[in-house]
Amino acid sequence: MQLTDHQLIDFDKNGYLFFPGKFSPDEATLLKQEAEAVYAMDRKEVWRESSGVARTAFAAHRYNEGFRRLGAHPRLIEPVEQVLDGSVYMHQFKVNAKAAFDGDVWQWHQDYGTWKRDDEMPEPRAMNIAVFLDDVTAANGPLLFIPGSHKLGVVEAGHDLETTSYPLWTLGRDKVSELAERGGCVAPTGPAGSMLMFSSLLVHASPANISPFDRTIVYLSLCHVDNHIRAFNREEWIAHREFKAIEAMDDNCLMELIAERRQAAE
Amino acid sequence: MQLTDHQLIDFDKNGYLFFPGKFSPDEATLLKQEAEAVYAMDRKEVWRESSGVARTAFAAHRYNEGFRRLGAHPRLIEPVEQVLDGSVYMHQFKVNAKAAFDGDVWQWHQDYGTWKRDDEMPEPRAMNIAVFLDDVTAANGPLLFIPGSHKLGVVEAGHDLETTSYPLWTLGRDKVSELAERGGCVAPTGPAGSMLMFSSLLVHASPANISPFDRTIVYLSLCHVDNHIRAFNREEWIAHREFKAIEAMDDNCLMELIAERRQAAE
Repeated sequence: MQLTDHQLIDFDKNGYLFFPGKFSPDEATLLKQEAEAVYAMDRKEVWRESSGVARTAFAAHRYNEGFRRLGAHPRLIEPVEQVLDGSVYMHQFKVNAKAAFDGDVWQWHQDYGTWKRDDEMPEPRAMNIAVFLDDVTAANGPLLFIPGSHKLGVVEAGHDLETTSYPLWTLGRDKVSELAERGGCVAPTGPAGSMLMFSSLLVHASPANISPFDRTIVYLSLCHVDNHIRAFNREEWIAHREFKAIEAMDDNCLMELIAERRQAAE
Repeated sequence: MQLTDHQLIDFDKNGYLFFPGKFSPDEATLLKQEAEAVYAMDRKEVWRESSGVARTAFAAHRYNEGFRRLGAHPRLIEPVEQVLDGSVYMHQFKVNAKAAFDGDVWQWHQDYGTWKRDDEMPEPRAMNIAVFLDDVTAANGPLLFIPGSHKLGVVEAGHDLETTSYPLWTLGRDKVSELAERGGCVAPTGPAGSMLMFSSLLVHASPANISPFDRTIVYLSLCHVDNHIRAFNREEWIAHREFKAIEAMDDNCLMELIAERRQAAE
């Protein structure tokens, strides 16, 4: 599960790495079913669009077995430990729906901007992982990155409380244009099971999903254990307060769950 | 400029054909400059988003030399004549901006739905051509098609006067989902100069452009001369009333204009 030198250079330059098909179709299908189960729950952690469809399920690794295992999967824990140089804890865990027709925009932002301002996370020694649970295409609201934008530290931002149902520190257009003049703008697309690893400083956004297909992505935010947050302004199921190191499970931990479920169904 | 048998079969099955790089980078650059000149004009044919930036310039082939030539270019006139089996006139000519950050959504619709209901065009014996004047990527609001949806005639639609600044007969979500179950949903992307040819019955949409890059596309709607509209409910610069056959110019007509401009600048 270690990244190659070439991958490390790539990550340093662009601020992200893309791994198409990192999880198998069976693993992706399992996790998609888990997402549907979670969205059907009436819990405070499940936020909805103004239309009522699910937008985000927070902390789903605490109340769902598939997501518990994903949150300790070596395919994501080990590369992140490698780049952050040490043990990590789970700062945030979101299953973002971006439902067909209804999925709303996420404006341009850096995640670390919010973690610093709202949670007093000392350094950007934290990493995002995105695991696609649906095929992500040009049609259904892919994640947009500005390559290289992680090199600039925390960029000035304003607190957007109006555009969407989720408060976010967002960048101004002039700043986004300036960054994109240098780095361009990319939209990694690939099949369900693909994985993105991206810097907590990388400037990103995602458009609304007007397509007839869902676009579910799990976002895990992993932080070095020494770099845990100092302020507890947000709900503990949004910005977690359990700072102990994650121990990676076995690589087949999701396949075992699939086998258990199949056996139970027989 | 004739389509091959294979292309004709493809078009019949999917309702569209994609020609990446059909126009050269020089030709695309010329037309992008023409678009900027047109958007800077204060004319009734240039419609704007609520923010003030240009959304659509109608009938630009009548007041701009580059677009006049594009409207008679053999690379689009000849394949359309071939499929529609005869001479064609220009029913509509739009330069759609979909500006960076501001470019708004176009909901799911069939163009012929509007032409039949509003303009009394007798048959769907008409074709759309899209010429990309910017690179179209997954990031900047690409056109979305439902392949095969042109096979179903005019689908039920409602008149949307509210969602955007342009009135449109749009399809319901259940219908779009039903069509996409069968045909899927594609977003052809490619460099500036690429060309799409698509049936006037093909169900399509395009999302908002939240990226920092523009996404300008020229749309030409060509109609068989015998199939001209019967009702004149819309402005004549939106739904044209000049039904005479277009005579295709030479293939180098845009290159000649580039050469003329270069000479004049020397």
